[in-house]
Amino acid sequence: MLPPIEWLNEGKLRFLDQTQLPQEETWLETADYREVAEAIRTLRLRGAPLIGIAAAYGLALASLSLPENDAARTLPILKAAAAELAATRPTAVNLTWALDRLMAKIAGDSDVKSIQTALLEEALRVHEEDIAANRRLGMHGAALLPQDASVLTHCNAGSLATGGYGTALGVVRSARETGRLRHVYTTETRPLLQGARLTAWELSQEGIPFTLIVDGAAGSLLRRGEADAVVVGADRITASGDVANKIGTYSLAVLARENDVPFYVAAPTGTVDLSLATGDGIPIEERSAQEVTSLRGMDLAPAGTTAANPAFDVTPHGYITAIVTENGVAREPYQESLSSLCQTRATSSG
Amino acid sequence: MLPPIEWLNEGKLRFLDQTQLPQEETWLETADYREVAEAIRTLRLRGAPLIGIAAAYGLALASLSLPENDAARTLPILKAAAAELAATRPTAVNLTWALDRLMAKIAGDSDVKSIQTALLEEALRVHEEDIAANRRLGMHGAALLPQDASVLTHCNAGSLATGGYGTALGVVRSARETGRLRHVYTTETRPLLQGARLTAWELSQEGIPFTLIVDGAAGSLLRRGEADAVVVGADRITASGDVANKIGTYSLAVLARENDVPFYVAAPTGTVDLSLATGDGIPIEERSAQEVTSLRGMDLAPAGTTAANPAFDVTPHGYITAIVTENGVAREPYQESLSSLCQTRATSSG
Repeated sequence: MLPPIEWLNEGKLRFLDQTQLPQEETWLETADYREVAEAIRTLRLRGAPLIGIAAAYGLALASLSLPENDAARTLPILKAAAAELAATRPTAVNLTWALDRLMAKIAGDSDVKSIQTALLEEALRVHEEDIAANRRLGMHGAALLPQDASVLTHCNAGSLATGGYGTALGVVRSARETGRLRHVYTTETRPLLQGARLTAWELSQEGIPFTLIVDGAAGSLLRRGEADAVVVGADRITASGDVANKIGTYSLAVLARENDVPFYVAAPTGTVDLSLATGDGIPIEERSAQEVTSLRGMDLAPAGTTAANPAFDVTPHGYITAIVTENGVAREPYQESLSSLCQTRATSSG
Repeated sequence: MLPPIEWLNEGKLRFLDQTQLPQEETWLETADYREVAEAIRTLRLRGAPLIGIAAAYGLALASLSLPENDAARTLPILKAAAAELAATRPTAVNLTWALDRLMAKIAGDSDVKSIQTALLEEALRVHEEDIAANRRLGMHGAALLPQDASVLTHCNAGSLATGGYGTALGVVRSARETGRLRHVYTTETRPLLQGARLTAWELSQEGIPFTLIVDGAAGSLLRRGEADAVVVGADRITASGDVANKIGTYSLAVLARENDVPFYVAAPTGTVDLSLATGDGIPIEERSAQEVTSLRGMDLAPAGTTAANPAFDVTPHGYITAIVTENGVAREPYQESLSSLCQTRATSSG
């Protein structure tokens, strides 16, 4: 799988328009950070780790149009750009995590050239580290699976959601590479069908055997024992181990526990927000009702239908068997295990 | 709400083509029982009680083209028609229940005119009794709800699924009539969107306030305490109280129990199959993968995607707070309570 995003040497960002998949493989190019923000808002770029990377590149783009002879305006302009990028989606913490990382690199620097170089280098590093982190995370996760494993996943936490290898699908890929994988079940993931469109596309591309099911069919699948594990990604993980992820994740976690199937969350430590004690503090993005009532312009429900469309839900830590990061596997009590894995992060990237 | 099916005096059956809702309100007419069978197979007619009624009318139609002077062929022809109607869908027991009821009425009769009259009268009675049963069932169910109740339902167990009042939506209608109803949440119910298309249409028509959600959003809705009860219909209920219903029902039942929300199944006693001890014996219809991978001819997933599409799942009785029938409310142990309510059926319609 190619990374879904790429920095071009001429100072442009190139990325796959994920709203067009699987019908069209359309690549877009831009030198304008506002177009990056818009692409995140409209889900052309989506997936918590990927939007962190995209925001980092966005800030690097913003620095390229800084006025050279006006050091006083440099920081305000960059802060405004970072704020605009951070505000595109409220739930995933990776956005602010990546932007904070970049802004920290230029603290005290007022030379525009040096700032431009520092921001681009750090954005490239965020991207490279994400791929490397996913590979390590994938190995840690694959080791948790039995031989000949059948895995149920939700939404898309694959190459398309990251810098290029995947979190939940990184675990799947590692399991495949080490000969442990038998089959993948993927929910379609309404309303935006990231499972049917994106996970199915990734798995098809690599010839990994999979079966698509509607979200409502996951319960009876787990009850029949057809999956050995559920593996999903995350948009934000609190200090307590509560996990915000795509709407429907909480249901899968409850159904997994009810049927004694382990439930794993796969995410880089950049997804962990130690500033939040519990999941109650995570802002849940409410998206347009139209995403539920219509599909590609076709009405699905009667005119005037009111729909609720929370994009995420929160799974309390008690349902989560383990959280798999690039630095190892966290288990209860997450308060301790997660903060210890995040310290490893601070040390290794420090 | 008008009944979705109607016998016309000129020996024809008229019914609403539910595959066209909510975009088009198309009524079809036929004098050919094979077209009734085809309409059941293709879900133009759907909902366990309604397909029982439709099959009964179908058998009455079949009798209208019996050869008048060939008594020896009468029974074989009717048995073949009944078998064809019964084979259209495997899960709902109402089909065989209604057909057996009609066939019992003509046992020993060889006069074609008398058979035609008996079958039509019994089909009309099955239809009338279903509406009356739903009204009684609705009252029993509404009495279980708190004042100002918010109800979550799944699929469509409304007028459109029955002779004309509804089972789960019959409970909703009764609650509305008695001033107990605040709000309805309906899942969209993938893959065929009976919630978004049909339940939303029925509720819109009557001005009942409702909110549509994707199937994956039901879990967090229950966790937030936004529904006071889950009320669903059923396609088959075993002697033990296990319930086959639209795929996704089992998940809702588990999530309801996890969040201390009562889970009610609303169904006429014609849905109870005392010949089956447990849900393991219920045949689960597997429908075309295309229903999952495409929508109105539009591909949702990459070409070549394999999908599983079980139309129903089984909810074990332990998750069910009560089963509401026209003869009263059954609770654990269902073995006793259900068989007692079904005896009432045998006595009253005997």
